[in-house]
Amino acid sequence: MPGPTGILARFARDARFGDLPVRTVREAHRTFLNWLGCAVGASRHAAIANALAAIRSIQGPPQAAILGRSERTDIANAALLNGISSHTFDFDDTHLKTVIHPAGPVASAILSIAQAQPVSGRDFIAALVVGIEVECRVGNSVYPEHYDVGWHITGTAGVFGAAAASGRLLGLDERQMTWALGLAATQASGVREMFGSHSKAFHPGNAARNGLLAALLARENFTSSERGIEAPRGFAHVLSTKFEPREVTENLGKTWEIDLNTYKPYACGIVIHPAIEGCAALAREHKLAAADIDGIDLAVHPLVLELTGKRTPRVGLEGKFSVFHSVACAVIFGAAGEAQYSDEVVARADVVRLRDRVDAKAKPGIAEHQCEVRIRLNDGRTLTHVVEHVKGSVERPMTDADLDQKFRGLVEPILGSDRATKLIAASRSLADAADASSFIPLAIP
Amino acid sequence: MPGPTGILARFARDARFGDLPVRTVREAHRTFLNWLGCAVGASRHAAIANALAAIRSIQGPPQAAILGRSERTDIANAALLNGISSHTFDFDDTHLKTVIHPAGPVASAILSIAQAQPVSGRDFIAALVVGIEVECRVGNSVYPEHYDVGWHITGTAGVFGAAAASGRLLGLDERQMTWALGLAATQASGVREMFGSHSKAFHPGNAARNGLLAALLARENFTSSERGIEAPRGFAHVLSTKFEPREVTENLGKTWEIDLNTYKPYACGIVIHPAIEGCAALAREHKLAAADIDGIDLAVHPLVLELTGKRTPRVGLEGKFSVFHSVACAVIFGAAGEAQYSDEVVARADVVRLRDRVDAKAKPGIAEHQCEVRIRLNDGRTLTHVVEHVKGSVERPMTDADLDQKFRGLVEPILGSDRATKLIAASRSLADAADASSFIPLAIP
Repeated sequence: MPGPTGILARFARDARFGDLPVRTVREAHRTFLNWLGCAVGASRHAAIANALAAIRSIQGPPQAAILGRSERTDIANAALLNGISSHTFDFDDTHLKTVIHPAGPVASAILSIAQAQPVSGRDFIAALVVGIEVECRVGNSVYPEHYDVGWHITGTAGVFGAAAASGRLLGLDERQMTWALGLAATQASGVREMFGSHSKAFHPGNAARNGLLAALLARENFTSSERGIEAPRGFAHVLSTKFEPREVTENLGKTWEIDLNTYKPYACGIVIHPAIEGCAALAREHKLAAADIDGIDLAVHPLVLELTGKRTPRVGLEGKFSVFHSVACAVIFGAAGEAQYSDEVVARADVVRLRDRVDAKAKPGIAEHQCEVRIRLNDGRTLTHVVEHVKGSVERPMTDADLDQKFRGLVEPILGSDRATKLIAASRSLADAADASSFIPLAIP
Repeated sequence: MPGPTGILARFARDARFGDLPVRTVREAHRTFLNWLGCAVGASRHAAIANALAAIRSIQGPPQAAILGRSERTDIANAALLNGISSHTFDFDDTHLKTVIHPAGPVASAILSIAQAQPVSGRDFIAALVVGIEVECRVGNSVYPEHYDVGWHITGTAGVFGAAAASGRLLGLDERQMTWALGLAATQASGVREMFGSHSKAFHPGNAARNGLLAALLARENFTSSERGIEAPRGFAHVLSTKFEPREVTENLGKTWEIDLNTYKPYACGIVIHPAIEGCAALAREHKLAAADIDGIDLAVHPLVLELTGKRTPRVGLEGKFSVFHSVACAVIFGAAGEAQYSDEVVARADVVRLRDRVDAKAKPGIAEHQCEVRIRLNDGRTLTHVVEHVKGSVERPMTDADLDQKFRGLVEPILGSDRATKLIAASRSLADAADASSFIPLAIP
């Protein structure tokens, strides 16, 4: 009897595009579009330029594109760089059940493979769905204990998704696929202390690179455990105090975790979004200026403080982990896009002044997609707003039009409006492409 | 005030060859010789051939040698492959306090760098000592809890040593060195479930590859945490229930962990060595044949069963994790070298018969370097032997002559006797070499 690793391996190999529900295929295309926009949008960031400089002397043949850039590199380093890029703005997709950002590790790996061998649009979309399924099910089986102790689950679960999706496209047999998952298990890494530095976005890139390597090794019969996930000294027991194997196996191939994927309207840690929405709504409705405000009190889910409690962010990237900075921007700019997380904005006097007047407290009964906002004005008035389901949640998803607009905001500054339009069209019909990589020339300058 | 990460970073950058005691320099040369022999000796193993096939399509320019082979590859993949090779026979060095195999991650990374830029023998030896110091101190700070839960500490601590040693040779400044250690922290991986497959030896190779990447990234100002080891969501607290920061910082630069390094006389898990020595001694002394023996009873340290309790190994590599197979070989062959861990020997009828008559029980008060052996004979007699300090322990070290003989046994079948002699001489005087990589032509066919 195969255990969870063996069952996942068989599923990863045998699942068929034709068995995917229409809704799932649609969500996969939305996931891909959002991922592509994030990767292109951040492609000029220092994190990418620095990582590219670091691998310059060791890289292999120029097999694959670095999205949004003119350089090409080998498929493993392209997976690394595109994975970093897609998470650098912290604007990518979120599987809210586990806080995994699912696309980065998986899409970055398989886009590399699709440039080194023929991969049809259907096979690409199926690999994306299957990789995300493996990744999120592994995550579900150990969440929340695994995350709570300090693992960045996008890295640790992501490497399984990258290995499974890569192994599928590389044609691994069932035993090789168990080895690929074993090699993923033994490369699972990434700690939350890295939040606020380039190394956070390194995690999905590294998961993509390492998952791809796992599949390449397994294809050559580099052996591993066949019980890498469930064995007493395997992934789940070593990296978590909780392991629920049914989360891996139950209804496998019948339900699809990608159906639960969500996309951010704001360019920062998702737990802050309800607070941003609430503050922006009050500021808009009452035409507030920062100088009108005596203080802002937020009642939030405990994770808001745990993940985004940076009181005095020093650089833009740290601002993404500061609920205080983010709601100050929501009031002053009416927005929390990438522009609001620059080093300059983080240091602006009016932003700092308002940020220091924000108080956030955890309140029992408040869910992650909710927030209670109270703004105290200098004239003595108090304004309140309750966010029940923030935009971008499963209950109030980003529409296709929202995603298109977000994509344009990210991609047009890099590639221009015409390319953005064509990339949206190509992404929306990716499963129909004879060659999944045929959009690539549109995605580089 | 810098914390442990910052203190280690400063040490890794500033420690000087001239401040190393003579004994430490000598041990570094012994460590290098033993590592080189192991890497060359295993260079034709399937694990290396398969890994080489896997990276063929993604590798970079042929900057560095794969020891014992004619192929060359980029410095990151050379670090991976030499690290795998040096641990494949499980014959490499051991820091007994932590069961870390220190040389693999560190030497594999810096030998790559020494082939890409000029590195003197002194700088190479200093980097080896410093890398091992960082690696073992990180290990000391979390051992044994970290190991007990299932981490393969050679992988998880090794990546710090590889990053520190690489960062030193790459000329990182102090802040970049903290980032390199942070990037090591967030790549720390490798679980013990992999023991018995190619993926065990993958761990030091992967640590070498990833530590080198960490240093390359940090040099380009790819940022990370500056508290990667000690922060609440950093390495130590996420990967261990124990963290003793004094183990990292106390007497740093005054005592040297490499002084405690040991080298194996037998090609298997070190905890089995006392049992092998005891059984071989009784068999030799009493001229025992396997057919004379009714049963063998071993009283051992609990780790023997935990790590090497495989009752019915199916392949040679699993035999290395079977105390039962190993002592059967000690009786039948009077040896436990690489030859005794082939697939054929593991399946031999006389070995299997005797293996099944071995019983091993943990006994309180028995240390890891000790064993009590009782052999019951068919004629009714019972023979006993107590091993107090096994050969290869800190108290009864392998002599230089022992190491030379071991080196020859590993290297001569690959490179011949003349090369082996020259490599021993080159290794013993490595610090005097103007170019640390000048021995490389001798180490390839």
